[in-house]
Amino acid sequence: MPHREGDRPAFKMVLVVRGELRLTAGKAAVQVAHASVLLALEAEKRHPDEFRSWSDGGGMKIAVVAPTLGDLETLARRARAQGIPFVFVEDAGFTEVPPGTKTVLGLGPARATDVDPLTGDLPLL
Amino acid sequence: MPHREGDRPAFKMVLVVRGELRLTAGKAAVQVAHASVLLALEAEKRHPDEFRSWSDGGGMKIAVVAPTLGDLETLARRARAQGIPFVFVEDAGFTEVPPGTKTVLGLGPARATDVDPLTGDLPLL
Repeated sequence: MPHREGDRPAFKMVLVVRGELRLTAGKAAVQVAHASVLLALEAEKRHPDEFRSWSDGGGMKIAVVAPTLGDLETLARRARAQGIPFVFVEDAGFTEVPPGTKTVLGLGPARATDVDPLTGDLPLL
Repeated sequence: MPHREGDRPAFKMVLVVRGELRLTAGKAAVQVAHASVLLALEAEKRHPDEFRSWSDGGGMKIAVVAPTLGDLETLARRARAQGIPFVFVEDAGFTEVPPGTKTVLGLGPARATDVDPLTGDLPLL
C-alpha cells in the first residue's frame, strides 16, 4: 500500500530497499539503519536547519521497497536534480549478497512535500 | 541462530528488537534505524574515540531479537553496569503499537568483546 498517512511531520527520511535482493527482515533492517545513520550524520554537519527540523519532529523514517537497482538509480537522479540528500548503502557482503551490492537508497531528511512525489507511491517494506 | 561470525570489526552496535510485538519487517527496520541514529549521534558527541573506531570499521550493526520487554530491561541494566551506551526506542504509535511502546533496545557502539556476552546468544532478526 502507499504510505501516505495523515498527521505526518514536515520532514522525513525515506529508505528505499531494493526488493529484488529479497533480503531477510534482519538484513533489511540493518541496511535501512546504515542509510539512516549516514544521512543523519551528513545532515547534522551540512544541513543543520533541516536536520533540526527533522530531529525535533521525531526523526521520522519510512521504509519502502522499489523492485530493482535501476529503480533506485532513477530515484537517486531525481533526488540529485531536486537537491534532496541521498546515499546508497553498499553491503560489505559477509552474508546474503556479494560485496559492494547496493542494497538501500536513503533519501533526506527532506520536506515531505519534496520527497513524497518521488517515493509516495512505493509500497511499505 | 546465534550471530557469532568470523572476521568481525572490533566495534559494533547491537539492536535488540522486542519479539513479542511481532512487528512487520518495515516497522522493525524503522525502529532499528531510530535506535542506530540515536546511538550514533550520541556516540559522536560523547564517545568520539569509540565512535570513530566503530565508524572506521564500517559502522557494524547487528539486529537480534529478545522475546519480552523484561528481557530488554535486563539487558539495559547489564549494559548500564558495564558502561555500554544504550537507548530505548519508544514508538510514536501511529500504526502497529500504542504510543510510548518500547520497541527496540540499542546497545553501543561498543567493543564486540564487551557486548557479545550480553547479546551473542540472541537469534538474528
